[in-house]
Amino acid sequence: MSVDGDEVKVLHGPEHPLSVGWTKSQTMTLFDDPQNPLTLESGGVLAAVETEFETYGRLNDQASNAILICHALTGDAHAAGWDLDPIGPLREFRRKKPGWWDSMIGPGKAIDTNRFFVICANVLGSCYGSAGPGSINPETGRPYGLTFPVVTVGDWARIQMELLTRLGVHKIYSAIGGSMGGQIGLELALAYPERVGSIVVLSAGHRVTTQGLAFNAVGRHAIMNDPNFNSGDYYGGPPPLAGLAAARMMAQITYLSEESMGYKFGRRLRGKESPDFTLTGIEFEMESYLSHQAESFVKRYDANSYLYMTRAMDYYEAAEKWGQGDLTKTAARIKARTMVVSFSSDWLFPPELCRELVSAMCRAGCPVSYLNVPSRYGHDAFLVETEAVRRLITIFLKE
Amino acid sequence: MSVDGDEVKVLHGPEHPLSVGWTKSQTMTLFDDPQNPLTLESGGVLAAVETEFETYGRLNDQASNAILICHALTGDAHAAGWDLDPIGPLREFRRKKPGWWDSMIGPGKAIDTNRFFVICANVLGSCYGSAGPGSINPETGRPYGLTFPVVTVGDWARIQMELLTRLGVHKIYSAIGGSMGGQIGLELALAYPERVGSIVVLSAGHRVTTQGLAFNAVGRHAIMNDPNFNSGDYYGGPPPLAGLAAARMMAQITYLSEESMGYKFGRRLRGKESPDFTLTGIEFEMESYLSHQAESFVKRYDANSYLYMTRAMDYYEAAEKWGQGDLTKTAARIKARTMVVSFSSDWLFPPELCRELVSAMCRAGCPVSYLNVPSRYGHDAFLVETEAVRRLITIFLKE
Repeated sequence: MSVDGDEVKVLHGPEHPLSVGWTKSQTMTLFDDPQNPLTLESGGVLAAVETEFETYGRLNDQASNAILICHALTGDAHAAGWDLDPIGPLREFRRKKPGWWDSMIGPGKAIDTNRFFVICANVLGSCYGSAGPGSINPETGRPYGLTFPVVTVGDWARIQMELLTRLGVHKIYSAIGGSMGGQIGLELALAYPERVGSIVVLSAGHRVTTQGLAFNAVGRHAIMNDPNFNSGDYYGGPPPLAGLAAARMMAQITYLSEESMGYKFGRRLRGKESPDFTLTGIEFEMESYLSHQAESFVKRYDANSYLYMTRAMDYYEAAEKWGQGDLTKTAARIKARTMVVSFSSDWLFPPELCRELVSAMCRAGCPVSYLNVPSRYGHDAFLVETEAVRRLITIFLKE
Repeated sequence: MSVDGDEVKVLHGPEHPLSVGWTKSQTMTLFDDPQNPLTLESGGVLAAVETEFETYGRLNDQASNAILICHALTGDAHAAGWDLDPIGPLREFRRKKPGWWDSMIGPGKAIDTNRFFVICANVLGSCYGSAGPGSINPETGRPYGLTFPVVTVGDWARIQMELLTRLGVHKIYSAIGGSMGGQIGLELALAYPERVGSIVVLSAGHRVTTQGLAFNAVGRHAIMNDPNFNSGDYYGGPPPLAGLAAARMMAQITYLSEESMGYKFGRRLRGKESPDFTLTGIEFEMESYLSHQAESFVKRYDANSYLYMTRAMDYYEAAEKWGQGDLTKTAARIKARTMVVSFSSDWLFPPELCRELVSAMCRAGCPVSYLNVPSRYGHDAFLVETEAVRRLITIFLKE
């Protein structure tokens, strides 16, 4: 998402009564019984699955008030409050930053931590504290790189459900997420219909578009063709930053919309009245923005993780997995009360795709509500349209 | 465009009566008076401008039947017939190939060479025979690389008009082009209102969108970050193929539409029933297509030229240049009878952008007709929707 920590609308500092305050990541090693390692959907096996997570609020005595927040492609477990002591190789970048959804989570906020026990876990394969390609392979004593097994949305749902079990939660009140996080929420409702009370799927659907597959492929191509990539085995040397930057710049375009880019940047030149006629330098504000975004991104994200995350999104197709290609049959599995929200200018997960899912759920008789929020912010809208999302979630969680 | 020589619908072999037959490129050195070199809009100066072109049909005695065809980003002068003896460093790739618009140009075709004298010239900065960054700089004896001056759409219009003058044409009957070629046609009508009888602007407009600026920037970024780029001075060594491939793959997505990609590729796997769970290999048909397209493209295009072409498209803004930002005032310059054609699924030059231009022309009282052709082929539609374009051009040229 283009709305990074430094841009997201942060409503309250850590001392404010509506903030969850300073937060601290935790880790838990899941599937750590040597007799029962985790076999992933790809066939890969992990003997122990280090999972980073944060929690806010308190689990009630009936363990009935747990809300799972599912993060997007480049997100992390730090969803709310201010990170006092982050975990993982990129911790320096992340210290004392607000959570990526701080606008939504806190005492008295839409996802009210006075009422709910909120959990957000970093997905397997990421670079933010959970096990991933940058973790040390205990068998070799070196980072996994691309020997880390391929992960899927199904794996993430299974791991997050295992984490919840270990935290004493059998049934979650709600799973809420946008984009990739919305895919995880949907998969949870499909894989664990008895254990998921409700889901909120924002800017996401049962699959990515063909265009989405294509953009992901080009992003990976840019990373893999970086001379520093070295088949993913670059942890001892310079990482493939230029390739990752190209991937991010392109992805950034897909998170915005022509309308929002036109409004924000148009054809304005960067700090000059007339062009310099340069091929290699910056002429337009639009270019400057993309460069700046990429520069900041490559400092805080690992190129290998980018490969794993985008592939997982590629692979996810709920109807293929659960209904032999039949989306209505798939939807019939869902028992969770569901809210799907699309945004009018989102072309990465376009409203039509969300409506495919919603229509199937209606045909299957599922309790689903759907809203297409008018917005010019493209895919980013689920993070930018704070007020609309806040209201929708507030109402949904009150029902 | 994604419709390369080997994909375009070729109606007739070189011996067919509807074909212009075997063609031969010509070159002309323009602005070759040492006292009067060409000063480009960027301020760069060229003492002689080698321009490659092809012609089909014969100029009539009144010199009133000339049609100028303007090629798109990666196009060339070989618009019709079969190339017997191409010119330029990439000639081997191009030998005995059909022209990129052979479906439209020929005796008895929409652009009828029994009636019209048809000229198509390769633009300055390209790699297909006209002077460009790969040409030898006479002052150094080495290829220009990025010391070649930055070129603009305005420069191209001026050069092509000079070529026409030298060919004995004062006023052209029509200038016809799609995408970047449509920008050139529009610019000709604005810069030489007395010398342009009519224009056909396909899938193009008075500027690129902000999204277009952004995609072009990312493409250049990918090229410039290729380790072989060497600031554009790579002609003695390996060229920056990986960067150019990434740029092309991304651009390819913008030439298609979600609908056409979904229809053609969807989520189909490439030659297998189930995924291999590979990060670095090909899983989907969509990926395979992009890789294949990029592979074929990098053999036949020069990365430096890609920088020059995309920059020229970026810079073009007709209203800024001709009307102090006022598009209606700009349009009032145009005396050419005009047809603008957009395609419903084109998101690179979307119908709304074309309508901006057409509305301004209507307000200015210009003789303009406009059609938005329903098509699922995205930006490529101007090359793919042969039948619709053929009919529109036939009618327009008969008027």
